Amino acid sequence: MSAPANNATQQTMTSPGDMFNLENPVFCCYLFWATVLVAKMLLMSLLTAVQRFRYKIFPNQEDLFFKNLEVKFDDPHVERVRRAHRNDMENILPYFIMSLIYISTNPNANVACNLFRVASVARIIHTLVYAVYPVPQPSRILAFATMLLITFYMAAVVALRTLSFI
Amino acid sequence: MSAPANNATQQTMTSPGDMFNLENPVFCCYLFWATVLVAKMLLMSLLTAVQRFRYKIFPNQEDLFFKNLEVKFDDPHVERVRRAHRNDMENILPYFIMSLIYISTNPNANVACNLFRVASVARIIHTLVYAVYPVPQPSRILAFATMLLITFYMAAVVALRTLSFI
Amino acid sequence: MSAPANNATQQTMTSPGDMFNLENPVFCCYLFWATVLVAKMLLMSLLTAVQRFRYKIFPNQEDLFFKNLEVKFDDPHVERVRRAHRNDMENILPYFIMSLIYISTNPNANVACNLFRVASVARIIHTLVYAVYPVPQPSRILAFATMLLITFYMAAVVALRTLSFI
Repeated sequence: MSAPANNATQQTMTSPGDMFNLENPVFCCYLFWATVLVAKMLLMSLLTAVQRFRYKIFPNQEDLFFKNLEVKFDDPHVERVRRAHRNDMENILPYFIMSLIYISTNPNANVACNLFRVASVARIIHTLVYAVYPVPQPSRILAFATMLLITFYMAAVVALRTLSFI
Repeated sequence: MSAPANNATQQTMTSPGDMFNLENPVFCCYLFWATVLVAKMLLMSLLTAVQRFRYKIFPNQEDLFFKNLEVKFDDPHVERVRRAHRNDMENILPYFIMSLIYISTNPNANVACNLFRVASVARIIHTLVYAVYPVPQPSRILAFATMLLITFYMAAVVALRTLSFI
Repeated sequence: MSAPANNATQQTMTSPGDMFNLENPVFCCYLFWATVLVAKMLLMSLLTAVQRFRYKIFPNQEDLFFKNLEVKFDDPHVERVRRAHRNDMENILPYFIMSLIYISTNPNANVACNLFRVASVARIIHTLVYAVYPVPQPSRILAFATMLLITFYMAAVVALRTLSFI
């Protein structure tokens, strides 16, 4: 009785329905790099806070932790970090969904894992050259374009695979 | 020995645990339209870039690709696209999560697929009438409200189904 | 023939591959609280609209629903809600992905469910003390830090579990 059961379990494990579990190395690789990017994004909030305290720029009346301060906006040091953070939201958040659903198409493990790695490292570089230590272009444009193109590639793969469900 | 195994696999395929795979037409329909919306959102970044180069409005010192330029903000042509893009993030990104988890409640395939289609087309119209060619209201409000109401409907379905886990 | 099949199905249900279905109480708890947070985020859009109509502050030419109005920006009542909304996007959207993939590591059900509950209630408090009725600090900082720390904890769990896929 136990032999058929094991057999059935094995078959299920390799069926197309079981992509989102820790036995799928592509999903594990997604987990690791998505986690890195989530942590990176949250650190942008802390970096904004650091800049706000360093230059004493607070946007709300209740945030004026020092005497003789007024609410202030448009400080270039704070706004640079906020632009980088907004750019993260514009690009990384759609990438999270796109790469997650891309896994369901059962892509080649090498291709998928390397896309996740390159896209994630590119966005870390994007943050470094935008918010931490600004350097001349085209460094930021290249880092930006890397994740953008990878997300478009995944979109093309998924859209072609599911075109009949339009 | 193979008969029970096949039987078991089939049972598993139709169990409530197997919603997120390519054998579920609702998930496939989600994949297609989520991909369309991801691509649409990324195009907003490129549309912003087009406007920045057309009107020569750059927010960072290192972006001044032309001589005798200074950093500039608040250009109405650029800001309109950025407002449309921010509105996308405010509405489409929560919709991605909401509609993905809505699939796990095993909704009627016709209802779910049509909700995905209507919501996605509504947001494409929203972009056209907001960022590409501004037209009088209430066209934008109607396009905005369509996805909002669909997301609230899915939220109601999921919340009622999982209310005991509060 | 039916006994092995049932046996196999049961085995599959408790295998690590079946986290994202309604038989997993952790996933159900995620569904409920993610839905609450999605609804809360969408209500920020409506709260912004309420403020815009109350103070007659509209950012687009086509939105001037009343006579003798001009487009206006930087109204403090509207901008406060928009800052709260942006803060939601910066924190809740990465949390949605982080907590969803955290479920795949098969965490202790009590721990995971309570993390979801505390993080969600903290963000509802964050909105109340930021956008609805501003109160002195550190109430907002504490509410903000609660979800941030929970997301970092989940990130640590997932990253350590998948470190070999770097």
